[in-house]
Amino acid sequence: MSMERTFVKDTLNKVGQSVTLKGWVDNKRDFGKLTFIDLRDFSGKIQLVGFQKMADLGIQDAIVITGTVKERGEKTINPELETGKIEVDVQEYSVLAKAATPPFDITKEELDLELPTLLDNRSLTLRHPKVQAIFKVQSTIVSAFRDFLKGKGFFEFQAPTIVPEIAEGGSEVFEVDYFGRKAYLTQSPQLYKQIAMSAFERVFSVNKVFRAEPSVTTRHITELVSLDAEMAFIESWTDITDLEDECVKYMLHEVETKCAKELKMYQATIPSTIDKTPVLSLTEAQQKIFDKTGRDPRGEKDLNPEDERDICKIIKEETGSDLVFIYGYPTKQKPFYVYPNPENPEFNEGVDLLCRGVEWSSGGRRVSDYAQLLNQVEEWKMDPSKITLFLEAFKYGVPPEGGFALGLERLTMQILGLGNIREASMFPRDMERVDLKLADKS
Amino acid sequence: MSMERTFVKDTLNKVGQSVTLKGWVDNKRDFGKLTFIDLRDFSGKIQLVGFQKMADLGIQDAIVITGTVKERGEKTINPELETGKIEVDVQEYSVLAKAATPPFDITKEELDLELPTLLDNRSLTLRHPKVQAIFKVQSTIVSAFRDFLKGKGFFEFQAPTIVPEIAEGGSEVFEVDYFGRKAYLTQSPQLYKQIAMSAFERVFSVNKVFRAEPSVTTRHITELVSLDAEMAFIESWTDITDLEDECVKYMLHEVETKCAKELKMYQATIPSTIDKTPVLSLTEAQQKIFDKTGRDPRGEKDLNPEDERDICKIIKEETGSDLVFIYGYPTKQKPFYVYPNPENPEFNEGVDLLCRGVEWSSGGRRVSDYAQLLNQVEEWKMDPSKITLFLEAFKYGVPPEGGFALGLERLTMQILGLGNIREASMFPRDMERVDLKLADKS
Repeated sequence: MSMERTFVKDTLNKVGQSVTLKGWVDNKRDFGKLTFIDLRDFSGKIQLVGFQKMADLGIQDAIVITGTVKERGEKTINPELETGKIEVDVQEYSVLAKAATPPFDITKEELDLELPTLLDNRSLTLRHPKVQAIFKVQSTIVSAFRDFLKGKGFFEFQAPTIVPEIAEGGSEVFEVDYFGRKAYLTQSPQLYKQIAMSAFERVFSVNKVFRAEPSVTTRHITELVSLDAEMAFIESWTDITDLEDECVKYMLHEVETKCAKELKMYQATIPSTIDKTPVLSLTEAQQKIFDKTGRDPRGEKDLNPEDERDICKIIKEETGSDLVFIYGYPTKQKPFYVYPNPENPEFNEGVDLLCRGVEWSSGGRRVSDYAQLLNQVEEWKMDPSKITLFLEAFKYGVPPEGGFALGLERLTMQILGLGNIREASMFPRDMERVDLKLADKS
Repeated sequence: MSMERTFVKDTLNKVGQSVTLKGWVDNKRDFGKLTFIDLRDFSGKIQLVGFQKMADLGIQDAIVITGTVKERGEKTINPELETGKIEVDVQEYSVLAKAATPPFDITKEELDLELPTLLDNRSLTLRHPKVQAIFKVQSTIVSAFRDFLKGKGFFEFQAPTIVPEIAEGGSEVFEVDYFGRKAYLTQSPQLYKQIAMSAFERVFSVNKVFRAEPSVTTRHITELVSLDAEMAFIESWTDITDLEDECVKYMLHEVETKCAKELKMYQATIPSTIDKTPVLSLTEAQQKIFDKTGRDPRGEKDLNPEDERDICKIIKEETGSDLVFIYGYPTKQKPFYVYPNPENPEFNEGVDLLCRGVEWSSGGRRVSDYAQLLNQVEEWKMDPSKITLFLEAFKYGVPPEGGFALGLERLTMQILGLGNIREASMFPRDMERVDLKLADKS
């Protein structure tokens, strides 16, 4: 079997020819004299028609085969499979690596495992098509985010992970022993992307952020991927919502077209969008909730989860859009860098994007005037000496600017309708688990 | 000035038209009645011809102008500038953000700052064209790495940052206080990329790695970006060198074509390559050094820095190639996962790539047979219970496989001929600095 390897997807152009394929035994069906094997490689899946002895092959064995590509009979065509109109008649095969018998049936269409079992066996469960689908969608989201922003002249930079003491304070931060001194894991690239923006005007990053929240819920993991963008020379905060609107729609469109099979596995549909995503102020949203449901959130400082679900439902009914921007939060409720509305400084020009009842992103216009920024730092009772690099960026001239951040795992989870954010992280870390369940403290 | 903004690069198509431009004052030249301004936005730089009053503008002020695009006279064309054949006659301007006077002359072609000053003023120095050039090259390297591998069917995954206790041991690792337990910052995505490979066959990642080496040298920073690839179903370790060879040449080609201006600023030339990069065993390389220089490194367990310089020089003279692969290191000198040569198990099938006297990457074939892997774990005196996810991947069938890793900052540094790796990290962290110089321990 010295013939050059053919990738599964390329067999489509090789009907009648002899090919060598390599891959894993995804499934097998034993029909006495014939054994049908689903062979999986990185490029796709194909049916092999093998002889009786191949029934001895184990699930997940890595094999190499030589055979002839032929068209299937009309009745045996599998419309679910990209290569469903062909199959390969095996002439020769050998095993490259024998697999142990999996502790559960990995060939089932639905894995039906409890989450701890899914994660305790992460290396094996990653081979399941429905698990792979999650990360196919995730990697499509990341690529779409980058491609869209590059197309708009945005510059990719690497935000740091290890950071000095956080000026904003906050206890939910991981401490690192840094040569006997204290350093921390970044909670957000916010200040660094603003620095990078002050030099490159339009920047983005795809970087890890860390949350030491001591919560075990379906929505909490400690290590997350943040998709961040920041842009200078805006006219208004609506330049940011316009940019984000276009970016998110591009990402959704990419997932819809490139992951149709994966979406189908989860019976998921891409969120509905309309030409221009509705934009409401917090006050307007609260009024609308009151008007439509009778429940009164007016005057609250933020939307609570019930408000988020209600406003999304209302907007969906009114406009058909699953997406909605909410802007104008109480200034003091948000970080020091969010721009207060000059006409009504009690409210700011921060903007969240909600989708199907959940917050997908936050962003908005930032304070870019140096004097105003120093003033905000003072009002927020922060120590300016802890953010000197950040302040320096604004000392040397930064025009009106803003940006937004999206959480990759949350987006993945929401698009596919997953029940737990851990499923949307290949190697999820939480309070109790880093790869495996952590031993009890002793 | 309500006209829609034109990006600098788009002025080229607008000769004779009125445009509104926004950007930073990169430089100015005052000629009495006329003031010439170099305006910089994310897309490029252009000369403005302004009236006398514009001499009051400060360097780095963020401004908006309206003016007319016109062709320059033959004699005033600037061939160094993409927009050098045109300029903009300013009719109106206003300042969007006033810059403080920089503490050093940021308009000079060469910044000539000591490294601590360069980094203490990172936000300002990031605006200098020669500093920006470094990160333009860096982001081009990253994009080329991703694009090349995606083109070969590789799948991008997110490797974790927080890891449990390292099975291989090693003291040069940062400890994280993980809810009162100990966790660590990853030194390499190696084991995770092998897990991801076992499921997706061809994978890559662009992720942070951390080195707690207590060294203050021109080559040490604690936070680095690692470009990692791993591939299953190889025939031999030479499949890995072939892949890496093609990948690195693609990256160099992309930098050469997309960063010509940036390379010129550093008087840097892309390393010379030949059709097939030479591949030598460690033993052959040592013999060659002995033969050519009289110095005798034969029998040593690795190449030392002098050996690396010598072998690169010799290969360059013999073949014209700045790149050379060295394979076959003493098995016990390398990690447990490197594949021992079956015909001579004292040496392994690990491969390093050297360029111009420096190691750029390491990689090679890995141990993929489960029984052999367990055996290696035992021989290396490692605790298998600390790498259960990793071992599980191989329990369920992994064919011959291998991969490689490149260090992004080192590549950037080498290509541009920078004197210190800190220059190749936007926010470099070392023993003494996290953004700013760390306070003395007290």
